[in-house]
Amino acid sequence: MRLLNFSPRNSHSPRLGIVIFNKILDVSEAYRNVREAEPPSWFLNVDELVKGGEDSLELLKKFTVSLSEDEVSEFLYDLNDVIYYPPILRPTKVLNMSVNYVTHGKEARLEELPKEPFLFVKLSTCLIGHKQPIIIPKSSKEIDYEGELAVIIGKKCKNVSASKAYDCVLGYTIFNDVSYRDRRLHQMMREFGINWLHGKSLDNGSPVGPWIVTKDEIKDPHNLSLLTFVNDEIRQNDNTKNMIFKIPEIIEYASTDITLYPGDIISTGTPAGVGLGTGKYLKAGDVVRVRIEKIGDLQNNVVS
Amino acid sequence: MRLLNFSPRNSHSPRLGIVIFNKILDVSEAYRNVREAEPPSWFLNVDELVKGGEDSLELLKKFTVSLSEDEVSEFLYDLNDVIYYPPILRPTKVLNMSVNYVTHGKEARLEELPKEPFLFVKLSTCLIGHKQPIIIPKSSKEIDYEGELAVIIGKKCKNVSASKAYDCVLGYTIFNDVSYRDRRLHQMMREFGINWLHGKSLDNGSPVGPWIVTKDEIKDPHNLSLLTFVNDEIRQNDNTKNMIFKIPEIIEYASTDITLYPGDIISTGTPAGVGLGTGKYLKAGDVVRVRIEKIGDLQNNVVS
Repeated sequence: MRLLNFSPRNSHSPRLGIVIFNKILDVSEAYRNVREAEPPSWFLNVDELVKGGEDSLELLKKFTVSLSEDEVSEFLYDLNDVIYYPPILRPTKVLNMSVNYVTHGKEARLEELPKEPFLFVKLSTCLIGHKQPIIIPKSSKEIDYEGELAVIIGKKCKNVSASKAYDCVLGYTIFNDVSYRDRRLHQMMREFGINWLHGKSLDNGSPVGPWIVTKDEIKDPHNLSLLTFVNDEIRQNDNTKNMIFKIPEIIEYASTDITLYPGDIISTGTPAGVGLGTGKYLKAGDVVRVRIEKIGDLQNNVVS
Repeated sequence: MRLLNFSPRNSHSPRLGIVIFNKILDVSEAYRNVREAEPPSWFLNVDELVKGGEDSLELLKKFTVSLSEDEVSEFLYDLNDVIYYPPILRPTKVLNMSVNYVTHGKEARLEELPKEPFLFVKLSTCLIGHKQPIIIPKSSKEIDYEGELAVIIGKKCKNVSASKAYDCVLGYTIFNDVSYRDRRLHQMMREFGINWLHGKSLDNGSPVGPWIVTKDEIKDPHNLSLLTFVNDEIRQNDNTKNMIFKIPEIIEYASTDITLYPGDIISTGTPAGVGLGTGKYLKAGDVVRVRIEKIGDLQNNVVS
């Protein structure tokens, strides 16, 4: 299933959608009409859906597989005719991997590569949806893209061993870990490190989406091509098989004495080709598109 | 006003409380009975109250000043007979200052002091209330306390100048920025810095509370004594006047291109006397108490 938070163009009230018949179905409205009953609160949006665990997903699947396009035609929207929101509106946490591809470690001029994952916390309030604008902040002139595969947690878990990590995964989405290279620097870098807050979490910054593809549709998340385009020029071209730390190891590491909750987002790091390496930062008018095999395209305009 | 999230001992459903008649008033229940009307949703808990801005605070004040102890006696609880929760249950963000007292900079053996604030993000899911246990995690043997004054944001704001920063403040509380010194280290420290995630945000870690004292009761937040006791031994003894960066500067810095929301917590750093300096870390059976003038005591047991 492809799960998303969307609204029709004439509304700004995000709701649960699922991609079906190559369109987006307004799940609650369809349910209300087809079943002639009130939909469960799980069907309000993806955040609520994931709280219901396997039961809510099962219910959604059971409802939608039985539908014909005709009976729900008035609740179907064209993929190009909706507003997209982050597929989790307000995640309990957003964790991002720093260097996790050898090629990116090289362009970042690291003297050595990480031997254990390094995660930082991203503010959930900087997330934007597919097709929402990346707004250039006043305080940065070095705005960079980072195309990444992100994992969505499907159930509450803690101290998860790598061998059981996929049990905790709901699915996958695309993350553009937009970064402000000039804001990450700080006088106390040697003692404290990078300013991960202002270097990573400015408002209207980090696109995520367009939807979550549930894990049953992606048997191997470590064999997906990942491409980032800026204005149709390919800037990043790699494959998720080249991650230094794979998803199970990242989940094991992240969850050590820290509970992960349904809807938590863990983004897995970016390959080479970002502006940090090439000096080509984003500017107003640019269009950034991250494409991951079996998920789709996450596209955003850059505006001042 | 002293605002808190609490529940009676026989319940685990946090609700809005206010300290009045030296007791804790269940605001919604008192309102329902005295006014014989449904309380506004603002009165559900502090998180909801702060969303209402000045109107909700004004309504609460107007309601509570008119009360006599007799008419609300059945909705009053002894301060020692309730369960305390974090005074914001689920803040949009928790930001913490790293070194912000000269004395702590020295005990941390910094070669120089910060010339601009350095903030890290704390996961809101690690917060616990007054009297809730600090649970020793499996992965750390160096659990440290850090007594701090915390600011609670009262309204949505962004790019706030220092001169207007107090307009955005709702009030103050006490924060024990519990830290895991052995978990902050990382092979990539020179490149990325401290592991602020596992060094700071393990589950059941960081006490905050017991309540928020609204800013009208603390005219000068930079003249408050701050004491931390471990088992009645004084470990920290300083005054908030000794902060390197004062609250207005911290808010100006934090809010640069990042929106602050009502209920956001910004903790202002700790003075000298923590285990990092003395080698005396917390162990099971310890009782940690942070006392800040005009706010009160934040006390927690350490359990394995």
